[in-house]
Amino acid sequence: MQTTDWRQDRLRVKTLLQAEESPGEVFVQGWLRTVRRSKGVNFLALNDGSCMDSLQIVVEEGSPAFTTAATLGTGACVGVRGTLVASPGEGQNWEVLATQLVVYGEASESFPLQKKRHSFEYLRSIAHLRPRTNAFGAVFRVRSRIAHAVHSFFQERGFVYVHTPIITANDCEGAGEMFRVTTLDPENPPRVDGRIAWHEDFFGSKTGLTVSGQLQGELFATAFTDIYTFGPTFRAENSNTSRHASEFWMIEPEVAFADLADNCRLAEDFFRFMVTYALENCRDDLEFFNKFIDSSLIGRLEKVAATAFQSMSYTEAVERLQMSDQKFEFPVEWGCDLQSEHERYLTEKIVDGPLFVTDYPEGIKAFYMRRNDDGRTVAAMDLLVPKVGEIIGGSQREERLEVLEHKMRAFDIHPDSMDWYLDTRRWGSCPHAGFGLGFERFLMYITGMENVRDVIPFPRTPGNARF
Amino acid sequence: MQTTDWRQDRLRVKTLLQAEESPGEVFVQGWLRTVRRSKGVNFLALNDGSCMDSLQIVVEEGSPAFTTAATLGTGACVGVRGTLVASPGEGQNWEVLATQLVVYGEASESFPLQKKRHSFEYLRSIAHLRPRTNAFGAVFRVRSRIAHAVHSFFQERGFVYVHTPIITANDCEGAGEMFRVTTLDPENPPRVDGRIAWHEDFFGSKTGLTVSGQLQGELFATAFTDIYTFGPTFRAENSNTSRHASEFWMIEPEVAFADLADNCRLAEDFFRFMVTYALENCRDDLEFFNKFIDSSLIGRLEKVAATAFQSMSYTEAVERLQMSDQKFEFPVEWGCDLQSEHERYLTEKIVDGPLFVTDYPEGIKAFYMRRNDDGRTVAAMDLLVPKVGEIIGGSQREERLEVLEHKMRAFDIHPDSMDWYLDTRRWGSCPHAGFGLGFERFLMYITGMENVRDVIPFPRTPGNARF
Repeated sequence: MQTTDWRQDRLRVKTLLQAEESPGEVFVQGWLRTVRRSKGVNFLALNDGSCMDSLQIVVEEGSPAFTTAATLGTGACVGVRGTLVASPGEGQNWEVLATQLVVYGEASESFPLQKKRHSFEYLRSIAHLRPRTNAFGAVFRVRSRIAHAVHSFFQERGFVYVHTPIITANDCEGAGEMFRVTTLDPENPPRVDGRIAWHEDFFGSKTGLTVSGQLQGELFATAFTDIYTFGPTFRAENSNTSRHASEFWMIEPEVAFADLADNCRLAEDFFRFMVTYALENCRDDLEFFNKFIDSSLIGRLEKVAATAFQSMSYTEAVERLQMSDQKFEFPVEWGCDLQSEHERYLTEKIVDGPLFVTDYPEGIKAFYMRRNDDGRTVAAMDLLVPKVGEIIGGSQREERLEVLEHKMRAFDIHPDSMDWYLDTRRWGSCPHAGFGLGFERFLMYITGMENVRDVIPFPRTPGNARF
Repeated sequence: MQTTDWRQDRLRVKTLLQAEESPGEVFVQGWLRTVRRSKGVNFLALNDGSCMDSLQIVVEEGSPAFTTAATLGTGACVGVRGTLVASPGEGQNWEVLATQLVVYGEASESFPLQKKRHSFEYLRSIAHLRPRTNAFGAVFRVRSRIAHAVHSFFQERGFVYVHTPIITANDCEGAGEMFRVTTLDPENPPRVDGRIAWHEDFFGSKTGLTVSGQLQGELFATAFTDIYTFGPTFRAENSNTSRHASEFWMIEPEVAFADLADNCRLAEDFFRFMVTYALENCRDDLEFFNKFIDSSLIGRLEKVAATAFQSMSYTEAVERLQMSDQKFEFPVEWGCDLQSEHERYLTEKIVDGPLFVTDYPEGIKAFYMRRNDDGRTVAAMDLLVPKVGEIIGGSQREERLEVLEHKMRAFDIHPDSMDWYLDTRRWGSCPHAGFGLGFERFLMYITGMENVRDVIPFPRTPGNARF
């Protein structure tokens, strides 16, 4: 039997369930999802997290393990020795006829995950135990595989992975409110003229948690051409919504010698790769989501994988929205940011598929985006997808030193405070572009899970940093 | 010609240098490392970060690009159109006879990286430009490839990748001093009875930056069996050494149903995989380090890749050290932690290769390590390697609820403050083990670079959070 396990003495449930033929005696370890007792036989469903399905363990009255099996409850941790045999039951090819049970850890009836459905809200309160449920087993297996897919996509294309800093002294990244990082005595911080002496803090200046690795990513793109980041980012915003977390992971590629069209092409390739990867490598888990969370999920993903993405300018998007019969809560007007309702209407009703909206008004986008020749728009792009709206945001960056300095001043950022950033425009400047994808946003898209708290192992949100 | 590039309109320098035959006309973009002018011809060394070597661009007097070439200095960013031809020069198979030069960004003589050697210390002060040097190009290419190797190793073996939280309310992880994360008004924080009201802080409690993902990793191991983390960790220690950074990345696998021997076997497999991966996939860059940084590097790595690791108990290690003729600065005595000089002597002189030291005295190790039956040691392990000393630290974890609670109290940790951690011992507890590898420590080992600041893109150390 082929096994990808790294240990010779142990087999994973997934390996056994996919066996072509029985290897005879096996030893397998895991946790009991259910225990069912009939006359003269106990059925234990053993799960080890390697896949959605549990392995049925049959303990018959004649077995030396029978007495032990009678004492076990849901949640117990056991090792099972026995023979892998064809299962007469439905829904599984194999089961184990147990001859020996090793009990590592019992679980009384106080174990919170007894066999019944629990609300996602309740399961959030036991985030340390919820990976032992079907739904969260699936979510975090998918999270792991998709994280690997991110690296595979970029590494196969020669991109250099950059760990951009988490602690930063920049306060002008502009993407959101920042957490402060400090070691000053909070009760009695050092002061000069009554004000806190930040130069006495750990790093010699006021520091916070990064909101984006883009600026540092740009520095590396001007040496390695194609780079990407994949790391945690933070927002200190007091918004308790189902889509916002205070700590989340972001993927930010940055590409030298790329314009906005190249950027859209990369985003499309990347997005399609990830969706295809999930369909091919996480099929069992996606089928679970399709069955219990969102019955249109797999159909939607398959359609996206097969469809060429469309593109239209912001200006055209505004016109199309204004021409539509739809009544929007927020009126549409050139110069205003698109609201979620507008984005959804564009991608769901107007094009019925993924859509790049490009070339937004300069005033509503970040200072580093490249000014277009029309003098009033910038080379920005957002990717909108049905059911979610905006999922990727990016731009070509302003590579012309004078234009960039001018824009920084307009955004109240003193150019001297970012001399290192400007240096890349001073010596060997190059056209470049990049985008950001919120990893959790993508996981919600690919699993159908509707709350960001349910795709992060231990979510951090206002009022909550437990576990 | 085979190309792994994701863009059809552009070729990478690495692709061209490895070409089997000339594709004829090519277009390539990058930065000029050097410019050499002879009578009637300019030689430009073009580097795009895809590999160590630059591509020689030949611009002859008859070429339309000749006038442009005459204006270019080191650091300029250009696109080159021309014909890939066999190079008559030594050390390269191919060069480009240029017919057109596109100048994206000039670089005056003020560009700091003129052709001369710079000290690593100086280059740290221009960390935003140093990736454009040979040494740091090599370091960060290796960093990227090795990060991918980490994921490949664990994913191929069925481990689930877990993003453990960065912001944490635990203050008992025990691995070091923590940075505080807060949004309270530092000038005038809310107070109750004169003391700061931490419950009014963003997360409703006092929070800091994680020093380890292990505890949360353990929670996931009790659901998925084999898991790993790979993320940033932090130490707020005011130690200005060449080996300590305030922000660094850690790899922490955690494995259910594993004892100390399994843990050592995994660490050995992992370490050898990583070294072999580097030798096979980063050869050019390693040869650079071998030539300019540490001439014993590749020999040492090849030896480690081919050697079975040895193992001895702490007790035996102490005896061997005491029996040796070596004079140590710190005397060796059972019960004391091993100093760097002892570790180096063990791995370099006594076994001359990688060495696991196991079963340390309980009093010098963390609370979560499993108590051995002798009642005075714990199932800990450190991996020592020549030239570095300790590079991996791990243990089997205490899975017995009563023993763990007892140990927590002995460490002044109130068990109630970690109820969620104890829950894994309460329901379905299992033997498990894991270890931590500091990613930067490993990069120093594999590159020969001697300062941690030189293997981190933008290092954070006391007094320094620039860029």
